Amino acid sequence: MKSGLNFLLAAKRCEIAALQQLALTSALVNVTGRLVHGLQRERGLSNLFLGSQGQQFGEMRASQIGECRQIETELRACFDELDTESALVGNGARLFSRIAYVLHGLDALDGLRSRVQALQWTPRQATEAYVRLIAGLLAVVFEAADSASDPEISRLLVALFNFMQGKEFAGQERAAGAALFVSGRAEAGEQQRLLHLIESQERCLEVFAEFSTAQVVELWSATQASATLAELERMRRVLCTAAHGSPLNAQVSQAWFDCCSRRIDRMKAVEDRLALDLLQVCEQKIAAARAELSRFHALDAGSPSEADTLSFFQSPDARATAGFGTAPQSYGLHLERSILELVQEQARRLQTMSEELDTVRASLNERKLIERAKGLLMAHRHLSEEEAHKTMRQMAMNQNRRLIEVAEAVLAMADVLPERTR
Amino acid sequence: MKSGLNFLLAAKRCEIAALQQLALTSALVNVTGRLVHGLQRERGLSNLFLGSQGQQFGEMRASQIGECRQIETELRACFDELDTESALVGNGARLFSRIAYVLHGLDALDGLRSRVQALQWTPRQATEAYVRLIAGLLAVVFEAADSASDPEISRLLVALFNFMQGKEFAGQERAAGAALFVSGRAEAGEQQRLLHLIESQERCLEVFAEFSTAQVVELWSATQASATLAELERMRRVLCTAAHGSPLNAQVSQAWFDCCSRRIDRMKAVEDRLALDLLQVCEQKIAAARAELSRFHALDAGSPSEADTLSFFQSPDARATAGFGTAPQSYGLHLERSILELVQEQARRLQTMSEELDTVRASLNERKLIERAKGLLMAHRHLSEEEAHKTMRQMAMNQNRRLIEVAEAVLAMADVLPERTR
Repeated sequence: MKSGLNFLLAAKRCEIAALQQLALTSALVNVTGRLVHGLQRERGLSNLFLGSQGQQFGEMRASQIGECRQIETELRACFDELDTESALVGNGARLFSRIAYVLHGLDALDGLRSRVQALQWTPRQATEAYVRLIAGLLAVVFEAADSASDPEISRLLVALFNFMQGKEFAGQERAAGAALFVSGRAEAGEQQRLLHLIESQERCLEVFAEFSTAQVVELWSATQASATLAELERMRRVLCTAAHGSPLNAQVSQAWFDCCSRRIDRMKAVEDRLALDLLQVCEQKIAAARAELSRFHALDAGSPSEADTLSFFQSPDARATAGFGTAPQSYGLHLERSILELVQEQARRLQTMSEELDTVRASLNERKLIERAKGLLMAHRHLSEEEAHKTMRQMAMNQNRRLIEVAEAVLAMADVLPERTR
Repeated sequence: MKSGLNFLLAAKRCEIAALQQLALTSALVNVTGRLVHGLQRERGLSNLFLGSQGQQFGEMRASQIGECRQIETELRACFDELDTESALVGNGARLFSRIAYVLHGLDALDGLRSRVQALQWTPRQATEAYVRLIAGLLAVVFEAADSASDPEISRLLVALFNFMQGKEFAGQERAAGAALFVSGRAEAGEQQRLLHLIESQERCLEVFAEFSTAQVVELWSATQASATLAELERMRRVLCTAAHGSPLNAQVSQAWFDCCSRRIDRMKAVEDRLALDLLQVCEQKIAAARAELSRFHALDAGSPSEADTLSFFQSPDARATAGFGTAPQSYGLHLERSILELVQEQARRLQTMSEELDTVRASLNERKLIERAKGLLMAHRHLSEEEAHKTMRQMAMNQNRRLIEVAEAVLAMADVLPERTR
């Protein structure tokens, strides 16, 4: 018959298994981040290539495609290593479903590339295609962050996800800005989109800073060369303030791309550091949990003595004051009581972890709510994502409320929102 | 190399595994409910036995103990069947940790019984001991409810947990009322406690009604015989309104116990029905998921054709209007496209489930927050659980706020709350 000690051990083994799964997922997140980085560059170069009618950037683009293919092979190998036979409980279904989606995107990638090569798609169309694939890859990272059962690891994953998402907005900004410069003419819609992308990336970076460790935030500040930033902000100003239809200097496109790339490449270094920290924390926690498991194994349940009754039915407080437990403190009793204390300590620790986790998850839930509200507006009002976001942002400004509060209000109206048809 | 289809299948297998684990947990919850019911009765009879100085209820108590021993054997067998070797991810650690705690309590149960037999403990002490063990058993049910990844099953588990918790408050009311009648004298502290128990059970039953199916709520209304209810309310009035120190008719204790027991036994019937519904829903969902898995297995990924590119990179909307996809609609293309559609459908469904789950879980989180706030008040102000609850209820009434809002406010003050020492 299984004893309390058996289940104490089993609970610890569950913790270890969850940590090991997190370590695996973290490794996956790392390769995913590298592919995202490569595809972001490929997207930017494809935009420049299309913008120049295939006259420029062809070689750089081809070499970038080669690099992406290598990382794709690595990522597919990671996916192959995932144990898809013995089903994961937890959010395995969501993670695998995201991966299935990504694999379809990767299968279709060569088709996209040949369309760009043949100049069949506009820069906007190509950008949207890359954005869709990268969003699928980031969704894998989001599920990883959402699955973490350890609050410290969850914090790091939330920081990493938001940093990657912020970097993706920076990448989209690079692509959109490059296309705008190359086109040689300011266009109000694209300018609005740029502003939206800048604002979105700043929001993500704020969340990153909130959840990351002080060291990584410091690294992030240190790597942002002020010269690059100043140049970026100057070109942003040129791009965003030019009157609709006025000329833009197409020659600046390369400088814009290089400046954005310098910044994004530095972001990649911060991302790598976060991913490394993540793996290290996973390993440390696994080692600590294993050590505790061995300590538990050394315990022997023995058979409970008469006096042990009291140790369960009386709280430490009551025990101290009620004057029970007059039986001699035999070694066996001491041992048995200490197992109960371990059980209670474990329960308290799991409780505390779950509470801390709720706090960290709140930020993921906020994101989910905002996305859901945006989706609702897009469906009901036939808005684009940017328009939906802009609408909510405007509501927040007008009503002096936080975006999350507006999202909650939008969702609360869900049932009464009229379905408009075009 | 694994394809999108492989991961589509893997995601479905994860869903099935999660459902099977829920079915197992539901069976465990069922036996747990029966033991809780038996122990509630044993607690009530022990109170009557102690109150009569061992002169009455000895035989009934002994036979109830025999019954509880049988169910305990069954529950231990259920625990033994749990796979503690291959670690569960998800909240396995929390569930196992709760079970470890319960097993310690069950080990100590015979010691408690012999103390009651020897009249060594007061009714209050005995009641508290049983309350502690039953709370441990209910915590197992709470973890089961918290682990559900299917919103419909989660709803039923939330309903069941709250019903069981409400029934436990009814059981505590029975024990406390019996002890009060048997003592022959009204006592203000105990009267306050009774009122608290009545209020708490009503709150739980409201949550039950909110989350349960209409049929079970109807069954619950139908089984509450109005004659029993009227008698109960009459005796509640006698108990709760008698002036402190005034005499109570000790002879009524048996009638009180019987009346409460009739009601509680009927509650057990509702609980059994809920548990049965739960198992059936689990089985239906497992069967449906298995059927879908076979359907997926019949698909063949094939190799993507050139035109398939578009199916990933273009939303259905864009596809309809953009005029791409002029390639002949070959069978292979149709099949491949339908796998992508299945992947997207699965992702949407998992998304919807996770959103619904968040809504259901909110009620569990409310409970967690209220318990946490109560614990904080107990620690900082050295209050008993009832006093802490009363304090919060009073704050809610004074400020015209919901209990959950008060709990949030209390938790927000956590850092600034002065640590009082006795």
